Amino acid sequence: MEEPNHLTEATMADDNIDGQVDEDEKDPESNSLNEPLLKRNRTLSSTPLAMVGAKVSHIESLDYEINENDLFKHDWRSRSKSQVLQYIFGKWTLAFLVGLLTGIIATLINLAVENIAGYKFLAVGKYIENERYLSGFLCFAGVNFLLTLGAALLVVFFAPTAAGPGIPEIKAYLNGVDTPNMFGATTLIVKIIGSIGAVSAGLDLGKEGPLVHIGSCIASLLAQGGPDNYRLKWRWLRYFNNDRDRRDLITCGSSSGVCAAFRAPVGGVLFSLEEVATWWRSALLWRTFFSTAVVVVVLRAFMEYCKTGECGLFGEGGLIMFDVSGVSVRYHVVDIIPIVVIGVIGGLLGSLYNHVLHKVLRLYSLINEKGKFYKLLLALSVSLFTSICQYGLPYLSKCTPCDSTLPDAICPTKGRTGNFKQFNCPNGYYNDLATLLLTTNDDAVRNIFSISTPTEFNIFSLSIFFVLYCILGLITFGIAVPSGLFLPIILMGSAYGRILGIFMGPYTQIDQGLYAVLGAASLMAGSMRMTVSLCVIFLELTNNLLLLPITMLVLLIAKSVGDCFNPSIYEIILELKGLPLLEANPEPWMRNITVGELADVKPAVVTLGGIEKVGHIVEILKTTTHNAFPVVDDGVLPPIGIPTRGTELHGLVLRAHLLLVLKKKWFLQERRRTEDWEVREKFTWVDLAERWGKIEEIAVTKDEMEMYVDLHPLTNTTPFTVVESISVAKALVLFRQVGLRHLLILHKYQATGVPPVLGILTRQDLRPHNILNVFPNLAKSKGSKKSH
Amino acid sequence: MEEPNHLTEATMADDNIDGQVDEDEKDPESNSLNEPLLKRNRTLSSTPLAMVGAKVSHIESLDYEINENDLFKHDWRSRSKSQVLQYIFGKWTLAFLVGLLTGIIATLINLAVENIAGYKFLAVGKYIENERYLSGFLCFAGVNFLLTLGAALLVVFFAPTAAGPGIPEIKAYLNGVDTPNMFGATTLIVKIIGSIGAVSAGLDLGKEGPLVHIGSCIASLLAQGGPDNYRLKWRWLRYFNNDRDRRDLITCGSSSGVCAAFRAPVGGVLFSLEEVATWWRSALLWRTFFSTAVVVVVLRAFMEYCKTGECGLFGEGGLIMFDVSGVSVRYHVVDIIPIVVIGVIGGLLGSLYNHVLHKVLRLYSLINEKGKFYKLLLALSVSLFTSICQYGLPYLSKCTPCDSTLPDAICPTKGRTGNFKQFNCPNGYYNDLATLLLTTNDDAVRNIFSISTPTEFNIFSLSIFFVLYCILGLITFGIAVPSGLFLPIILMGSAYGRILGIFMGPYTQIDQGLYAVLGAASLMAGSMRMTVSLCVIFLELTNNLLLLPITMLVLLIAKSVGDCFNPSIYEIILELKGLPLLEANPEPWMRNITVGELADVKPAVVTLGGIEKVGHIVEILKTTTHNAFPVVDDGVLPPIGIPTRGTELHGLVLRAHLLLVLKKKWFLQERRRTEDWEVREKFTWVDLAERWGKIEEIAVTKDEMEMYVDLHPLTNTTPFTVVESISVAKALVLFRQVGLRHLLILHKYQATGVPPVLGILTRQDLRPHNILNVFPNLAKSKGSKKSH
Repeated sequence: MEEPNHLTEATMADDNIDGQVDEDEKDPESNSLNEPLLKRNRTLSSTPLAMVGAKVSHIESLDYEINENDLFKHDWRSRSKSQVLQYIFGKWTLAFLVGLLTGIIATLINLAVENIAGYKFLAVGKYIENERYLSGFLCFAGVNFLLTLGAALLVVFFAPTAAGPGIPEIKAYLNGVDTPNMFGATTLIVKIIGSIGAVSAGLDLGKEGPLVHIGSCIASLLAQGGPDNYRLKWRWLRYFNNDRDRRDLITCGSSSGVCAAFRAPVGGVLFSLEEVATWWRSALLWRTFFSTAVVVVVLRAFMEYCKTGECGLFGEGGLIMFDVSGVSVRYHVVDIIPIVVIGVIGGLLGSLYNHVLHKVLRLYSLINEKGKFYKLLLALSVSLFTSICQYGLPYLSKCTPCDSTLPDAICPTKGRTGNFKQFNCPNGYYNDLATLLLTTNDDAVRNIFSISTPTEFNIFSLSIFFVLYCILGLITFGIAVPSGLFLPIILMGSAYGRILGIFMGPYTQIDQGLYAVLGAASLMAGSMRMTVSLCVIFLELTNNLLLLPITMLVLLIAKSVGDCFNPSIYEIILELKGLPLLEANPEPWMRNITVGELADVKPAVVTLGGIEKVGHIVEILKTTTHNAFPVVDDGVLPPIGIPTRGTELHGLVLRAHLLLVLKKKWFLQERRRTEDWEVREKFTWVDLAERWGKIEEIAVTKDEMEMYVDLHPLTNTTPFTVVESISVAKALVLFRQVGLRHLLILHKYQATGVPPVLGILTRQDLRPHNILNVFPNLAKSKGSKKSH
Repeated sequence: MEEPNHLTEATMADDNIDGQVDEDEKDPESNSLNEPLLKRNRTLSSTPLAMVGAKVSHIESLDYEINENDLFKHDWRSRSKSQVLQYIFGKWTLAFLVGLLTGIIATLINLAVENIAGYKFLAVGKYIENERYLSGFLCFAGVNFLLTLGAALLVVFFAPTAAGPGIPEIKAYLNGVDTPNMFGATTLIVKIIGSIGAVSAGLDLGKEGPLVHIGSCIASLLAQGGPDNYRLKWRWLRYFNNDRDRRDLITCGSSSGVCAAFRAPVGGVLFSLEEVATWWRSALLWRTFFSTAVVVVVLRAFMEYCKTGECGLFGEGGLIMFDVSGVSVRYHVVDIIPIVVIGVIGGLLGSLYNHVLHKVLRLYSLINEKGKFYKLLLALSVSLFTSICQYGLPYLSKCTPCDSTLPDAICPTKGRTGNFKQFNCPNGYYNDLATLLLTTNDDAVRNIFSISTPTEFNIFSLSIFFVLYCILGLITFGIAVPSGLFLPIILMGSAYGRILGIFMGPYTQIDQGLYAVLGAASLMAGSMRMTVSLCVIFLELTNNLLLLPITMLVLLIAKSVGDCFNPSIYEIILELKGLPLLEANPEPWMRNITVGELADVKPAVVTLGGIEKVGHIVEILKTTTHNAFPVVDDGVLPPIGIPTRGTELHGLVLRAHLLLVLKKKWFLQERRRTEDWEVREKFTWVDLAERWGKIEEIAVTKDEMEMYVDLHPLTNTTPFTVVESISVAKALVLFRQVGLRHLLILHKYQATGVPPVLGILTRQDLRPHNILNVFPNLAKSKGSKKSH
């Protein structure tokens, strides 16, 4: 998939093709035999900045690689069997707790939403019954306004990172990008309360995305033993305070979130696998599955409890589950035509939605930049607009007489949930648009999915509903409240599916409710571009296995069509936020450039000696922004019978560890190598997993500046390396598959005097966009990406 | 997961602990500070031999890495947009064809089995009705004997690799191990016919494993453009004739096979993902899903066609689908107790089954080694024993009177499929054991899964059935016919589940049929150790989503219990066959040893010059078995302002390409570097993807021996490398994640005179078992594997 920025650049390159040919002729280097495609005009810039929440933040890469220095090795060797068992037990306990807590919080959110929204609709219903329509509106809009205000205030003032779904940031985290404040306790609490407020306020957004984020927050907090300021200090919990284990647990958390949102345990696992996670192991699959199983058990237990009526208005409707298992699915080979039509239209609409949403989000980011007040204003305007439309539009719809075969208790429905809202109609009549609009989003989906009701909704009402939710879906997503993308897309898709069903009605045997389901699925695939996971989620959601084959076809077609136009919505958001995600597949032109050529256009690498002066370390830390430095010993005699002295690459030391040394003042009076016990006396491997402040915060006296540090025991002796002649494509594969933060480039020449390390590659250096900035001709040669 | 061999060795090490301490004291090296855990006593042996089919064969690693030499790079740059599109289109077309053909062949196998077995049972039924029991037996046993004979003859004489399920070999292939004759046309045909014969013969084996193998064979044949001798020469097809693309297609094939076996499209994809495939990309997930969707559509179309009655006895019963969707699943929190019991017993039984099957297979391999006649004899004895038991045992069971509420047409059933076989009973009575035994395996499963029939089977009959199928499941698997493991395990498991259900009956609300389903699931998980994929397969098989949460729990418990005892059955078989599978997770002790230490105990690496004498190449090829050689240029002046001449690592050249050069006689009179066009004149990149015979088959004249070859254009200039100080654990992660065949070890020293390449690591060097042979003390220090 091509990234949007990159796309525009490629197009620009095509436009300027004449100008570029001129340049080629002037540039003698471009005619050289070895590098016909390269043109060097700038240095490779790496700006580790991205939008996190509402502001531009400095982002860092995560250390998924195991830092094998002396401390780690010693700890590793000395771990007793019982400690290993403790660690395994701990992993499973944490996975259990993630599932348990996510399940409980999801239930509580559902309870809160159903009760708040339920009482709201009860009150509004009372006013309407007494024909006090204006008071009804004021009550409706007022409550919505206040709920939105509450959610937005919390988000704007306490946790800007809690806005939106959070899924793109989780995806970035699992890809190796740390975004500050994403998984903190404040974010978690604001997300929970904000989500309750925003969903109860009837805004066109879901609680699915936020639940994924909530699950991940829980996982991250558990892994680090609690919120930043009040961490538990249990030794076994601190085993997990490293990026690797936290990554695994956050994967469990995001699966649990999806599972809790859709009651889809297998779908949840697959969602993480297909969309969110970057690295995956069979063992992790199993642990994730365990977490989602726990979630399902929790949800089931709560539902059983709520059947007793103890949960207020929550109870029957509760957890979304758009059950269409009642319908007997019959379809023949001819039904392939409407299926293809749904798929194609879903793909087109989905990519159109992505395109327009991208524009809207760009516009919104301009508004949001103006300040907190404007953010609030935007959220409240959207809330007011939503309330007006939801309350006002049903008046446009005519009253429909109830089907006489239905009992009075079913049609029309007064009060709360039900398929035939009476609204402003006389007894025996119902308002079909009110059935869809004046209800919670979950209920709206349930109503529009309802089966064996071919005449319930007329085409006029469905069209109004569809247009309204297209507009709402576009304007609601970017406001400063926790918001999921699933439900808006399901609402839009089901409406268009049902409209299509009415048109197709005479030619097919498929029920209209199934059309709505398929429409929703197609739009999801058209926008989010998932296949297997969506298929399973829909399966678990609709509880009808016979739908599987046609759902599969619809999803495949919609995704294929959508992929022709633009990337998935999550990729668009990631690109917009500037989060440097590494794609799994290298661009084809990456085979035409070597890492040596990349290193040439980077600032020179800074190496440290194995035993280094404190002053030099401080100076380097102050003058560079590098996060790791190769450690090289000079004048070493190779122990293989060669008389020449040369250099020895000892490894890579992290800036964080250098800072730790300075902070703990582990200095030596003379230039000497330390013994094993000396370093273990001062540091534990748990210290090394933390990230320690900034160089500016550390005071070193003038005397200390003249002292020495033995970097050997703190150096990761096993960094991954590549030779300069390797192609960027292969380096990228290595970087991403192994989950690296730094990749050392070695010379292909072996001779005294050749510096041992040619350069270091980081995530930013391997991003296509950054490389193309320096070598624009590469894109020209191979603009299109071969899809693998 | 620990490998069995390794386990025994670890145990032995513990037993001999005293002896080893003595040795430690004698060995001065073991006291050195840097390598306290190492003891070098042998050289690292790498025997690339494994059991393939019935004989020990030489196996090779596959080249999943892209060989970036000059030819490839030129071809890559010159590929036009339309060629790229052609390639993409080709990939999807092949995925479609794999699904289509697998679907069709699966249907044909089903048709054949149902008809052959159906007519067999009809004939036997006639004899029994006339009370001619002996003739009935002779007919039954005779037909079974002949069918088994046919299947075994084909397998023994034409395609020994078609015996067994084939899944372990596919797993090895996707891990990077090429097993000869596994995916040929003969294997495919023998597998199809043999599978029909063996299943129709009523042997206790399934067609599921064979179908996976059949799907993979189809995929492999399509990718290479046909059988070895009659390949299609279309240019675009030859794009796929490389290990990488074939790997992807075989993944599609194995998923299609599972899908066709269980009509479980999502389960098929997940099965490949969880159990079979080693590398996986999101894009491949999607393509695999497409293949399985095609399979489902094909199966559905056939089923619709067969409903018209055109398919002989096939029709209703047809495709296995043990539908329990009719039952309304009700369960409460207390039902967790029987679920836990089922899970624990399933795990115990499953690991016991693995253990005993391992012994039986070892015994069988002794018998099979004796010759083809013994193999036939074994297969026929098993067939005869099966026939005797299936026909004889029902006489032990008493006749049960039919439930009077059932209509006469249902109970008792005469003729073909049905739940209440009359067998030797008077009218109005049925024989419950005959219902389970005198039918096809598919029908037996369907009968034992049947719901709302709590009194149908009595505990005596079920116990006989269980014991019989335990025995048959153990003795049938290893015989020389295509055989799957799924069905025997399902049969065993469902019997024990149903027995448990009868005991638990008074205390629970769960239906006995569901107990059978859960029992089957638990035994599968206990033996095969899959979770998510089994869960989805069972879901799709039983068509009841409400079972999902309890199935999940049962699977998780059974797998956990089983993992305490031994590895999964497929891993046991892989170990038994000696296929060198690389595990995803390194053993913990691998962090305590560096690749440099491994290289020390290997034979010295053989390097070639960039321009090399023909005679030298021939000599090296004759005297070594290496499959790749580093290419190093001497006396090169590094272009970075350093006056010392040194060596330059140019890359890695494959043995196959050297052979190609010798075969095509691309020799130079003088020692010079060639131009780009010279190599392209002689070779195409398609030539390079082939594997070319042996050095012994190539004749080089004495004059030619004195000529030169320029290896530069044929050298892969971008090999993956590691520095000698990297730990074996990390090297293994790199090796497996990137899918390597060779990994170069570089010196950490940079000085003139240091050889540029210290060694080469291959798959065999990284196998725990091989390393422990040389460094036995490593296992002592960290015997248990930390599960990730």
